[in-house]
Amino acid sequence: MKAFMDETFLLGTKTAQELYEKYADMRKIPVLDYHCHINPQEIYEDRKFENIAQVWLGGDHYKWRQMRTNGVDEKYITGDAPDREKFRKWAETLPKLIGNPLYHWSHLELRYYFGFTGNLNADTAEEVWNLCNAKLQQADFSVRGLIRQSNVRLICTTDDPVDPLNWHEKIKADDSFDVQVLPAWRPDRAMNIEKPDFVDYIEKLSDVSGVRITDFASLQKALAVRMDYFAEHGCSVSDHGLEYVMYEPASDEKIDEIFKSALLGMKPARKEELQFKTAFMLFVAGEYHRRNWVMQLHYGAKRDNNGAMFEKLGPDTGFDCISNHTPSAQLADFLNALTKTGIPKTIVYSLNPVDDAAIGSVIGCFQGDGVKSRIQQGSAWWFNDHFTGMTNQMKSLASLSMLGNFVGMLTDSRSFLSYTRHDYFRRILCDMIGTWVENGEYPYEEKILAELVKGISFNNAVEYFGFDLKTI
Amino acid sequence: MKAFMDETFLLGTKTAQELYEKYADMRKIPVLDYHCHINPQEIYEDRKFENIAQVWLGGDHYKWRQMRTNGVDEKYITGDAPDREKFRKWAETLPKLIGNPLYHWSHLELRYYFGFTGNLNADTAEEVWNLCNAKLQQADFSVRGLIRQSNVRLICTTDDPVDPLNWHEKIKADDSFDVQVLPAWRPDRAMNIEKPDFVDYIEKLSDVSGVRITDFASLQKALAVRMDYFAEHGCSVSDHGLEYVMYEPASDEKIDEIFKSALLGMKPARKEELQFKTAFMLFVAGEYHRRNWVMQLHYGAKRDNNGAMFEKLGPDTGFDCISNHTPSAQLADFLNALTKTGIPKTIVYSLNPVDDAAIGSVIGCFQGDGVKSRIQQGSAWWFNDHFTGMTNQMKSLASLSMLGNFVGMLTDSRSFLSYTRHDYFRRILCDMIGTWVENGEYPYEEKILAELVKGISFNNAVEYFGFDLKTI
Amino acid sequence: MKAFMDETFLLGTKTAQELYEKYADMRKIPVLDYHCHINPQEIYEDRKFENIAQVWLGGDHYKWRQMRTNGVDEKYITGDAPDREKFRKWAETLPKLIGNPLYHWSHLELRYYFGFTGNLNADTAEEVWNLCNAKLQQADFSVRGLIRQSNVRLICTTDDPVDPLNWHEKIKADDSFDVQVLPAWRPDRAMNIEKPDFVDYIEKLSDVSGVRITDFASLQKALAVRMDYFAEHGCSVSDHGLEYVMYEPASDEKIDEIFKSALLGMKPARKEELQFKTAFMLFVAGEYHRRNWVMQLHYGAKRDNNGAMFEKLGPDTGFDCISNHTPSAQLADFLNALTKTGIPKTIVYSLNPVDDAAIGSVIGCFQGDGVKSRIQQGSAWWFNDHFTGMTNQMKSLASLSMLGNFVGMLTDSRSFLSYTRHDYFRRILCDMIGTWVENGEYPYEEKILAELVKGISFNNAVEYFGFDLKTI
Repeated sequence: MKAFMDETFLLGTKTAQELYEKYADMRKIPVLDYHCHINPQEIYEDRKFENIAQVWLGGDHYKWRQMRTNGVDEKYITGDAPDREKFRKWAETLPKLIGNPLYHWSHLELRYYFGFTGNLNADTAEEVWNLCNAKLQQADFSVRGLIRQSNVRLICTTDDPVDPLNWHEKIKADDSFDVQVLPAWRPDRAMNIEKPDFVDYIEKLSDVSGVRITDFASLQKALAVRMDYFAEHGCSVSDHGLEYVMYEPASDEKIDEIFKSALLGMKPARKEELQFKTAFMLFVAGEYHRRNWVMQLHYGAKRDNNGAMFEKLGPDTGFDCISNHTPSAQLADFLNALTKTGIPKTIVYSLNPVDDAAIGSVIGCFQGDGVKSRIQQGSAWWFNDHFTGMTNQMKSLASLSMLGNFVGMLTDSRSFLSYTRHDYFRRILCDMIGTWVENGEYPYEEKILAELVKGISFNNAVEYFGFDLKTI
Repeated sequence: MKAFMDETFLLGTKTAQELYEKYADMRKIPVLDYHCHINPQEIYEDRKFENIAQVWLGGDHYKWRQMRTNGVDEKYITGDAPDREKFRKWAETLPKLIGNPLYHWSHLELRYYFGFTGNLNADTAEEVWNLCNAKLQQADFSVRGLIRQSNVRLICTTDDPVDPLNWHEKIKADDSFDVQVLPAWRPDRAMNIEKPDFVDYIEKLSDVSGVRITDFASLQKALAVRMDYFAEHGCSVSDHGLEYVMYEPASDEKIDEIFKSALLGMKPARKEELQFKTAFMLFVAGEYHRRNWVMQLHYGAKRDNNGAMFEKLGPDTGFDCISNHTPSAQLADFLNALTKTGIPKTIVYSLNPVDDAAIGSVIGCFQGDGVKSRIQQGSAWWFNDHFTGMTNQMKSLASLSMLGNFVGMLTDSRSFLSYTRHDYFRRILCDMIGTWVENGEYPYEEKILAELVKGISFNNAVEYFGFDLKTI
Repeated sequence: MKAFMDETFLLGTKTAQELYEKYADMRKIPVLDYHCHINPQEIYEDRKFENIAQVWLGGDHYKWRQMRTNGVDEKYITGDAPDREKFRKWAETLPKLIGNPLYHWSHLELRYYFGFTGNLNADTAEEVWNLCNAKLQQADFSVRGLIRQSNVRLICTTDDPVDPLNWHEKIKADDSFDVQVLPAWRPDRAMNIEKPDFVDYIEKLSDVSGVRITDFASLQKALAVRMDYFAEHGCSVSDHGLEYVMYEPASDEKIDEIFKSALLGMKPARKEELQFKTAFMLFVAGEYHRRNWVMQLHYGAKRDNNGAMFEKLGPDTGFDCISNHTPSAQLADFLNALTKTGIPKTIVYSLNPVDDAAIGSVIGCFQGDGVKSRIQQGSAWWFNDHFTGMTNQMKSLASLSMLGNFVGMLTDSRSFLSYTRHDYFRRILCDMIGTWVENGEYPYEEKILAELVKGISFNNAVEYFGFDLKTI
């Protein structure tokens, strides 16, 4: 029996262990986190945490969901119970999460940052609480300390076009912190024409951009102004949250008509909504291509499904689900429409894991122009970010596209302890490759294997995004 | 090489074997079969079987399907060939079912009930025929004998609202049999407004309930009367067979209009059908919540696909298939609509196995209120009730929700030998957990592991359904 | 560590190795390739190849796709770069395809035909180029030589109804080549009423058949004339490429009206297109049943997605993808509609791998009439033709239907080196069965295991299609 989550965790063969130690260990091969949701203000201010409950349970809707699933009262989740009690409820819940990524994430974090090698449960809760809280008082457990401990070289946050990016500016101006923290452009609110706050948002965008938005052309102009601003702040990555990748083309006149109606407060019909969003996406994708930005398409989520809880807690509190209406035909048609002006580098993520094969086949239709895997399938996302999900995504990508060019992992997280998810991913990667090699399915050629593992862990992303970083 | 289906069948590690022996073996940890289709009359009358063909081939459409697949003439399947010849045809078919659950189910039954440790094929058919038939003459091979041999504590049958439940009454009144046999409420016929026999059925429901049904309000009243009657007979579980979980809301007036039209013999338009069914489901779900009943939603089946055979043999004869139109968005919207009045404990089963992840994500949006895993994903159902299907369902549930609270297995069967499906399930469960432990993915903490295995095998269902049973 | 792709490649157990050696090795158990896209003219003319680039890169859109994915310039793919440079680009690309079937296919071909046991990469490209090209000059490396080396007994090509089948005639008349090369009937162009060349095609069909096509009845007559012609040339297999298996019934008058409109150059509305195609498929399926032909249904592909590349290179050049709109309900309804006249032997292939379970359940509704697995699920197709895809398809088939009757593998290829895909498939099959046996999940009964392995490798196809071949 292997020891619980020791150094060789998930590394089932000698080759896997060797590849991991030499070419994937986070302490040697740094982390490039090209998509996350952390708050740059907390980085600039170098926030410190009073206790482990603050770090773990302060904003982590993954954990909240599971505590609710275990029948824990909301008071101990998002309510006003003391941190210590919240932590105890989480510790009691954890053993039931056998087979869940939260079980592994939590223990990877406890081991990597806090040196705790046991397992957290009701009996050990007190010990872990004390151990972690003591460590959190140390200087290197501030936000910046944690980022440095994690050997992170670059972080892309997720930012709205109207964001002033002032925290990014301050971080950049601060010589004492040499990790790059770059904004990423996420213009969902400018696209979501059906939402009640759309008109307000467009007004804000007018103000911030200095472009009076009265029609689709001026909307485009305002967005371009803000893209320039983002680019000046080092942005080269965009991100979109879409119901699905739709393709419902319409004439310029029709789009203008739909948009002007919306500015007057009229909610568009469903078809018009899709037409507007299609036009919006075609426009921004063209801009991304022109600017050599990467376009990330995240789709297949249906959000805020529990109306009662949404009213109480707002969005991103653990009430989202997978939508299984994600037509691959429209994804293909949308990408095809982009071939006229040029397809930007694109990363496709579906929340519906059964889309793996369809995506693998669609991206193969639009490769080329000298970029390695110009169209990528993104790493297993959100509800799929677990052992089976990552394994399936990588095996599908390997079978249908080219694993060797994969840009690999990201945290997609709000937490400063979540960098060990890169470690989790790399272990799974090394185990998969190690198994292939030991089974005689791939030759033991160390030079080639090293390039593959380092590539997927770090180098491919450096090259693909074109960041100002050295490959390893 | 491991011996064929011996005591350690499917238990690939020492930990798996230990967990199974101590905490999952049916001889120690009893069976709670909360969903099946056995006939309570046969329990009351304590039916005996003349031969193994009667038990195995009398009503098992799983086996019929496979005999047809093997080109066997219908005469030997549902026709008038002698039982001995039918059994021989089945024995000849079985070896081709390598990798099929019927192969394992059949041999588990032969081993558990009849002590036959070989394998059934054309050469051994005669031996098995004689062996089984001799055993079937013994007193403990009556229906009640088989149930007792299987260490079953409680059975829920599946019953129509108009059913008088007289056999349940008689079983309860019979002191010589201490296994609880409870009715479960399955009101499909009261909901299927598009079916030709709908009006007849509503008339029958009027008669049985004593409520003259003339509009949707009186239908609700009649159903409530029958729910009271079922509750008096110990029912606390409902079950629904749905095309998919639809959400097509409409006004009360519209629903009344649709229903009244149907009572006049008019077939509703498709949209109206969905509206009526949505309203029906919202009503009964509210009632279930009020009564603390469990709502089971079985969906994704398309039934009676072979028109010619349906005319000859009727329903449930092996001509059903998976429908892959099962929109997760409507499942989420339906559950959300229930939050207004309160969501009952709910178990969601889709016949389409690719829905696993979507379901895992949807149920996470509606947990809470102090019940552990209030919304469950049901065990791999029907066409998915096999090694791969059960493994995938449990890994998905573990990854996306909480395996530790899972209410586990049911037979869904018409057969009194099928309790070994619980054994099959428990072996797969123990093997999965054992592998995790031996790989260092979960700690070897016997107390916690024992709670998990006993919980999923028996205790969780006792607590979730609230049956009058002691946990182990 | 196992050696790289040696004799026991993919055969993880002793039983697997034994089954493979005795009952699956292509050198002993011949190949029946019942579906491919090779050019019969090249067989008749016994084409020879100058170099390995011609064989490998001349028409293989699988490889083209991957070279594009690796950022290789189109000049080295379909352009005018010298063959040697094209080959080098491929060799450089290959190591990145870890986990991809092309990696294994390429090395199986290098080992089986050329005796190269190393691995192809930038460093070995020169050596492999020279080795292969030398071999290709040998007499037994002509097209016929390769087919003979591969122990192929029968090949079905894929042919349009208007094809004169002259090359098939010549091959048959040539006594020096005893491999059967039969036409297969693929009438897609006669069905695709929405395509711009439909009217031209119907005129050609009129000419070739000698039947003036003016309405649906005369179209049927013309098709029947050509089916007779194909049958005279040994055809007993049909094939269809469908978006999905649709069922949109309409009256005979309506179909006639749609067809006549199309003959006048009018493009049908989407619904009319589906109605016409449904009627077309119902007609040909009836004919197949009457003639005892096999009907192959390939669906779930969306083709020619990259408009720009389609204009440059035409169809079948690597720009197709999976469509995930493949309603199982219509597949069931279509097959049910056929029960009136009789369902032909049918093989169902979906390009969407998530359809496995739905297909497994649908085919079970239409079995019988004395044919073993009358309705089959076809082997993992195209984008699914890889280790995971084949494993999943076989496990799904085993779980839901009957693996023992499976007609097994086909190449679906344009290449004369691709017969080793049968070897790849058989290794996976033997490994799967070997694992089951060694785990005690299936008994070690050599006679039964031999029948299973030989059956799925060769014999089942002989019996199912009714070819003039001896079983082994």
